[in-house]
Amino acid sequence: MHDDLIKRCYVLARKAIAHGNHPFGALLWKDGDVLMEAENTVVTQMDVTGHAELNLVRMASKRLDPETLTGSTLYTSTEPCIMCQGAIYWAGIPRIVYGAAGSSLAALQGASWYVPSRDNYQRMRAAIEVTGPILEEAGMEIHKKFW
Amino acid sequence: MHDDLIKRCYVLARKAIAHGNHPFGALLWKDGDVLMEAENTVVTQMDVTGHAELNLVRMASKRLDPETLTGSTLYTSTEPCIMCQGAIYWAGIPRIVYGAAGSSLAALQGASWYVPSRDNYQRMRAAIEVTGPILEEAGMEIHKKFW
Repeated sequence: MHDDLIKRCYVLARKAIAHGNHPFGALLWKDGDVLMEAENTVVTQMDVTGHAELNLVRMASKRLDPETLTGSTLYTSTEPCIMCQGAIYWAGIPRIVYGAAGSSLAALQGASWYVPSRDNYQRMRAAIEVTGPILEEAGMEIHKKFW
Repeated sequence: MHDDLIKRCYVLARKAIAHGNHPFGALLWKDGDVLMEAENTVVTQMDVTGHAELNLVRMASKRLDPETLTGSTLYTSTEPCIMCQGAIYWAGIPRIVYGAAGSSLAALQGASWYVPSRDNYQRMRAAIEVTGPILEEAGMEIHKKFW
């Protein structure tokens, strides 16, 4: 099941590229249903906070009640940056499943933005279960073509 | 100078309460001018990402060019959470000055969301200069009345 939902995140990441943005996609899943999906919108919205996960959390916190959020799992094409780690925490979403590892993307970019989600959540004593990487090779293929 | 701008952030934090939101305010400063200000909007916008600093970064990245951002300092009433630490990083803002320490607020709330901004930025090898706490007692007075 993880595989199918991560594959869907990769489709959303490719859509984000087609829409002129960076290759990231995320979705919210609960009890067998995809509740909502989001893409990166950094370029087209001229908003550095427009990461897929943050866009998803903004929509979700407006539209869904707290009980739905605490029963949901957030799937994302790449492990969240610290901004999105924080957004997911504030939304009360207790499970994250990611495709490509943040460390792999940062290494590809020669960048140092990466702090492991598990490390920050441990420091915050946050009961957020983090699973991944999943189908990382396919996820990194998208990044290798883009960056 | 820091004192006056932190006092202004405390005014914004009190305005946020008056508007029905949580007590946080932030502003962007460059070369003697306040470029823009923002308040927390979590409650009224039903958006858990509506922290003052994140709202400020969203506005700033839409309206200001990268050169202005890299010449600016972000002042905030309370040390940023990890979400806002990330947003400030992505915006390329190289200096943060805060009033109340995140550790003081988290202790007051009995909460564990706090990860020191300096620690995350060190791990990210981010050249972001962090100054604070400044006039912390006045900042914590606002929190003690609210939470």
